Amino acid sequence: MKRQILRMGMIGGGPGSFIGAIHRTAAQMDSLVQLVCGTFSSKIEKSQEMGRELSLSPNRIYRDYEEMIRRESELPADERMDFVSIVTPNHVHFAPAAAALRAGFHVVLDKPMTLTLEESRELAKIIDETNMFFCLTHTYTGYPMVKQARQMVLNGDFGKIRKVYVEYPQGWLSTPLEQEGNKQAGWRTDPSKSGKGGAMGDIGTHAFNLAEYASGLKVSHLCADLHTKVPNRVLDDDGAMLLRFENGASGVLMATQIAAGEENNIKVRVYGEKGGLEWQQEDPNTLQVKWLDKPKQIYRTGTPYVSSYASANARTPAGHPEGYLEAFANHYRNFSRSLLARLNGEEPEKEWLDYPGTEDGLRGMAFVELAVENSKQGQKWTEFKV
Amino acid sequence: MKRQILRMGMIGGGPGSFIGAIHRTAAQMDSLVQLVCGTFSSKIEKSQEMGRELSLSPNRIYRDYEEMIRRESELPADERMDFVSIVTPNHVHFAPAAAALRAGFHVVLDKPMTLTLEESRELAKIIDETNMFFCLTHTYTGYPMVKQARQMVLNGDFGKIRKVYVEYPQGWLSTPLEQEGNKQAGWRTDPSKSGKGGAMGDIGTHAFNLAEYASGLKVSHLCADLHTKVPNRVLDDDGAMLLRFENGASGVLMATQIAAGEENNIKVRVYGEKGGLEWQQEDPNTLQVKWLDKPKQIYRTGTPYVSSYASANARTPAGHPEGYLEAFANHYRNFSRSLLARLNGEEPEKEWLDYPGTEDGLRGMAFVELAVENSKQGQKWTEFKV
Amino acid sequence: MKRQILRMGMIGGGPGSFIGAIHRTAAQMDSLVQLVCGTFSSKIEKSQEMGRELSLSPNRIYRDYEEMIRRESELPADERMDFVSIVTPNHVHFAPAAAALRAGFHVVLDKPMTLTLEESRELAKIIDETNMFFCLTHTYTGYPMVKQARQMVLNGDFGKIRKVYVEYPQGWLSTPLEQEGNKQAGWRTDPSKSGKGGAMGDIGTHAFNLAEYASGLKVSHLCADLHTKVPNRVLDDDGAMLLRFENGASGVLMATQIAAGEENNIKVRVYGEKGGLEWQQEDPNTLQVKWLDKPKQIYRTGTPYVSSYASANARTPAGHPEGYLEAFANHYRNFSRSLLARLNGEEPEKEWLDYPGTEDGLRGMAFVELAVENSKQGQKWTEFKV
Amino acid sequence: MKRQILRMGMIGGGPGSFIGAIHRTAAQMDSLVQLVCGTFSSKIEKSQEMGRELSLSPNRIYRDYEEMIRRESELPADERMDFVSIVTPNHVHFAPAAAALRAGFHVVLDKPMTLTLEESRELAKIIDETNMFFCLTHTYTGYPMVKQARQMVLNGDFGKIRKVYVEYPQGWLSTPLEQEGNKQAGWRTDPSKSGKGGAMGDIGTHAFNLAEYASGLKVSHLCADLHTKVPNRVLDDDGAMLLRFENGASGVLMATQIAAGEENNIKVRVYGEKGGLEWQQEDPNTLQVKWLDKPKQIYRTGTPYVSSYASANARTPAGHPEGYLEAFANHYRNFSRSLLARLNGEEPEKEWLDYPGTEDGLRGMAFVELAVENSKQGQKWTEFKV
Repeated sequence: MKRQILRMGMIGGGPGSFIGAIHRTAAQMDSLVQLVCGTFSSKIEKSQEMGRELSLSPNRIYRDYEEMIRRESELPADERMDFVSIVTPNHVHFAPAAAALRAGFHVVLDKPMTLTLEESRELAKIIDETNMFFCLTHTYTGYPMVKQARQMVLNGDFGKIRKVYVEYPQGWLSTPLEQEGNKQAGWRTDPSKSGKGGAMGDIGTHAFNLAEYASGLKVSHLCADLHTKVPNRVLDDDGAMLLRFENGASGVLMATQIAAGEENNIKVRVYGEKGGLEWQQEDPNTLQVKWLDKPKQIYRTGTPYVSSYASANARTPAGHPEGYLEAFANHYRNFSRSLLARLNGEEPEKEWLDYPGTEDGLRGMAFVELAVENSKQGQKWTEFKV
Repeated sequence: MKRQILRMGMIGGGPGSFIGAIHRTAAQMDSLVQLVCGTFSSKIEKSQEMGRELSLSPNRIYRDYEEMIRRESELPADERMDFVSIVTPNHVHFAPAAAALRAGFHVVLDKPMTLTLEESRELAKIIDETNMFFCLTHTYTGYPMVKQARQMVLNGDFGKIRKVYVEYPQGWLSTPLEQEGNKQAGWRTDPSKSGKGGAMGDIGTHAFNLAEYASGLKVSHLCADLHTKVPNRVLDDDGAMLLRFENGASGVLMATQIAAGEENNIKVRVYGEKGGLEWQQEDPNTLQVKWLDKPKQIYRTGTPYVSSYASANARTPAGHPEGYLEAFANHYRNFSRSLLARLNGEEPEKEWLDYPGTEDGLRGMAFVELAVENSKQGQKWTEFKV
Repeated sequence: MKRQILRMGMIGGGPGSFIGAIHRTAAQMDSLVQLVCGTFSSKIEKSQEMGRELSLSPNRIYRDYEEMIRRESELPADERMDFVSIVTPNHVHFAPAAAALRAGFHVVLDKPMTLTLEESRELAKIIDETNMFFCLTHTYTGYPMVKQARQMVLNGDFGKIRKVYVEYPQGWLSTPLEQEGNKQAGWRTDPSKSGKGGAMGDIGTHAFNLAEYASGLKVSHLCADLHTKVPNRVLDDDGAMLLRFENGASGVLMATQIAAGEENNIKVRVYGEKGGLEWQQEDPNTLQVKWLDKPKQIYRTGTPYVSSYASANARTPAGHPEGYLEAFANHYRNFSRSLLARLNGEEPEKEWLDYPGTEDGLRGMAFVELAVENSKQGQKWTEFKV
Repeated sequence: MKRQILRMGMIGGGPGSFIGAIHRTAAQMDSLVQLVCGTFSSKIEKSQEMGRELSLSPNRIYRDYEEMIRRESELPADERMDFVSIVTPNHVHFAPAAAALRAGFHVVLDKPMTLTLEESRELAKIIDETNMFFCLTHTYTGYPMVKQARQMVLNGDFGKIRKVYVEYPQGWLSTPLEQEGNKQAGWRTDPSKSGKGGAMGDIGTHAFNLAEYASGLKVSHLCADLHTKVPNRVLDDDGAMLLRFENGASGVLMATQIAAGEENNIKVRVYGEKGGLEWQQEDPNTLQVKWLDKPKQIYRTGTPYVSSYASANARTPAGHPEGYLEAFANHYRNFSRSLLARLNGEEPEKEWLDYPGTEDGLRGMAFVELAVENSKQGQKWTEFKV
């Protein structure tokens, strides 16, 4: 009997968690995934509370991830979870992911991959050895128009790419929220939970990933200037860097969390010899396509003229705005469809395989560590190596 | 034991249905609703196919709505569906809705309410007599920034309202798609399935509803000019009308499906003595607030400064775009929370009760019939009566 | 010796006049016109003050237009003014224009043409009989992207035109400024100076003219609803109307001066069978071109791909915004170039002849009178006749 | 007798010159300046042709700037030019400017100041010694909304400034136009005429100037990466740099002429502790003002609520777009009003004195030379010194 739906367990995402709720909604949006179990908090009462709220079976709410993995492994194959979704702060990424993979569970992991690059290299090895599926939720590459951008670049529509700009301004950390008990701000500004990067880890990695994805290029060198603008904060909350790409293109990355008044305004621009493109999350269903000698074009989600990748990642006809949750859900849908294909012994569509994974994770962690390191030094360029 | 989740049955929404998929996703987005049964198509095989795709129990896929209502009624109270979602073409609205209500099932119904105003009046009576919950999915009033608009108007921020503009241009019916086998176009242009209105019934009702909701006003008179631009089409595919409101405000409503190149660009503007507002679905998380003597303000979904109604209808922080599915889901969420409160003997929050219902449905049907009637006559004004 | 520059006299436009200053700047922007004389105010001292400010010769500042026309006529041909620019309120349009034409001076006249349609018919006759050049400054058709719009429509790019929307919302008359000594508001709301129309005469005529110009169509019928929203005001300050065009297209015109918070936001949209266009003065160098089945295109002022009419009406390369003064100046430039060609016995370029004149004036006056009349009656449609 | 108008001579700006025509129109827009003489080209025939086109007296068309300065000096004081406008390529800036100043003529000079920083230092000394007026036409700081930005920053509305982004993408040099005979491209890419910087000299200086003007800050260090993307080009056509400001703020400057499809899209963003602002030339009459905890505000040219600096640099009421020519004209108007005040022995308004001059010129030249130098080196930071 053909599998139509996957069973998901969740680690993290207890009461008040922003990203946990996002993952649950995104995962289940397309009726390809059902949440069946979880360990949502280090406090079992909170986990149980969340389980009740989600109408989960009480006996599948677990004390911690070890218990969850052990007990789920003991369930019959047609009942136990197929994969785990890990939505904890960065310092609790590696251990549960490694344990799940080794126990035969596929993994969806919130970004960045781990606390350190070293951990990521280790996790990559485990993914490789266990041959399990792994998805890292770099949301922004899930938008249909970002996929359209990449396809047009890869198709050579703009000629050789010369220029990449990516920016991610936020303003919410303009004041010392972490000193006022804000939990979201707390772990993000704490190196023991967040890792070496502050803004760079939290949002710089998204910008970096989007730049490489949309341009189809790899960064070869960077030159960074990171800052901590808010007094008594330890990690960077602001930064920018000059980029060079393997093909010779030049670029700029800007990521800040102290641009007071900005919401979550990630944007990427790519220019080649014949034209360029611009995509901005504030208007996510629009892709501006600019030409050297022709009128600018406005590509839109849900239209008949977009690439198969853009079409496969939309749910509604043109003019029915799709947003952040849908972009997030696209990664889950592609991951789920790919995994269902494997479980059903079928060949996945090529569009389903286009979700972020190990390499995105590794490069993202290298990005953080190299940027932090380069920013401290007097020498201009650091070579990008994973 | 407190109810956390509602059980939903669906009538209509078989393979290829646009609006059926929207309803399912929207209903289940917030883990307050679980689809448990359905009669998705007049062909039982198609219903069963849809049931398998949705991982529903095969014995809860029904041959028709009569069977569904009868068989579900026989299930134990803690198993049978709580409400039905009806997503069929307009001519199959009244009968299943009436039957469901009379059998004790609450109803969510796609707009417009019924095929004729007469049916709507009858249905309204049944809703009233049975004291069941009824939600009519006028999507656009589910957007957080539309709710913000209404609250600012009701709060008197703009003084007395003088002016309302609403427009809903689409272009997809610019060619005779219905003569080329397009199913969506087919029933919408067929009076036996759609009713007296073409564009007026399909999208004019949305525009009308949005205008009354955002302005907090009721239309008192209209003067319409409807057209059928595409040869061999029977119903209107284009129209506009002058409006007068009970408080003396003047207005314009424009709705067309032959504005070639337009997607689904519904927009409303309301002006009072001191300022006005503008909301457009293409940029749904933005509300422009204009002042006679101060800088324009940009209100945004997910920010801390919006009204409780706007906040209660958002899911993500500012800068994470929410779209059409989320707006749709807001009606389901508010309906579900209100219904759960009733089932649990609790008092609902006032924000939950703000979803479209009987009066919206009745006025929408009156709008269609009066507009069609007025358009044919030589006299300018028709009084708006339900 | 070839004439390179024209000599202009001005009637009206004294200290504090908005439109007088606009005309002077626009006329002289391209070094094709030099202001040489004027009667700027009914008070000679104010005229002289303005003359000094403008460094005009004191003996060419005149007491009134009769004196100006008489005295300028007596000057040698290579010294006297070539044309007059008339920028007085509407009730002082006909007499000076008629006198100037009859004395052999060409005329540039601010819109609307005259106080009454009857006067306009008379003036049209004089223009015809004297064979003088006449330009009516309907500013908005001077924008390069409006010219591009018209050329694309005339070229058949969109197929047969089905739909025209035009709107002109302003908010500055939301309060009774005319009762507080505001001079601009004063004459515009006074029927003895403004004519039968308030908002319709002031801005409705612009909207009407833009709609006919951009669509290449003529209105055949209208159905209007005009209002006076501000207490104690006599003329309309708000209105809208349904339109029908000679070719069967339908349309809507909205013009209001009580949309509190709006600046001067004139906008036109035209749709044909294959696509449509949208132009808005707030972003005047952009023309949105929409297609039924292709990405929307953004045409821009100053680019190499626009029509000869758009190119001939721009001054700077793409990306150097041109605004209201430049649009205004385009009418003067085209009028001047055409007139210089005549004076030099040369053939004008066809692009130079594209400035508003007699027919625009007549139709604008008919528009005002028919709209006011229709608004009062119970019958729906009024045929449009000049 | 009070001077009302200034007499201007022009050096450069012959047939086909883009910037010459801009200067002439801008200078004369407000009837404060009259062009009376010129040496428009190194070929006297071309100068004379331009003189005829501009209706200048043939005996005030000069062979070269030396002749112009000598002959104008011999004219009576009430006839000779008051100032010269120099619009030649960069390598012909210093000599005519120095000669004019020494002969007692004030100077308006197109940017950048000179061919080299050394020349600029020398010219600054001459300006200082001769006590003449000097204006350097950095167009973009002439926009009303840029002035509004600076005033809000200086007023402390945003608290301490932390962040400055400035960008200036163009695409017109994406192909080797200079190798195809394009004159504009020719001198800009020729170091003997343009100086050490290509894109940095041409547009980077504008971006730098705008960043310092809008933020009220001075750059203290820069770290640059310049590129020459088009084969066989000598100077940079693309670049970006990290900036640090004297007050500790961080920043990024991006300027490129190979962003294919971009027009002339200069934009600046400044963020302080409490909010920030954004201005973009594509929408020049809008200033976005963003707040940490309040709705974004849209400030607009011509409104009653803007600062005296913004009001003094506008010509039309809100909603009548002002563009590039008007911004350019603002510098001329402020320069002219200041100079007229001096000639008339009056005190200038403080708003008139706000036009770019010596310090802008010096810092702009230092910017180019330091950026070019830093880009070649392996060390990260270069201190900004004039």
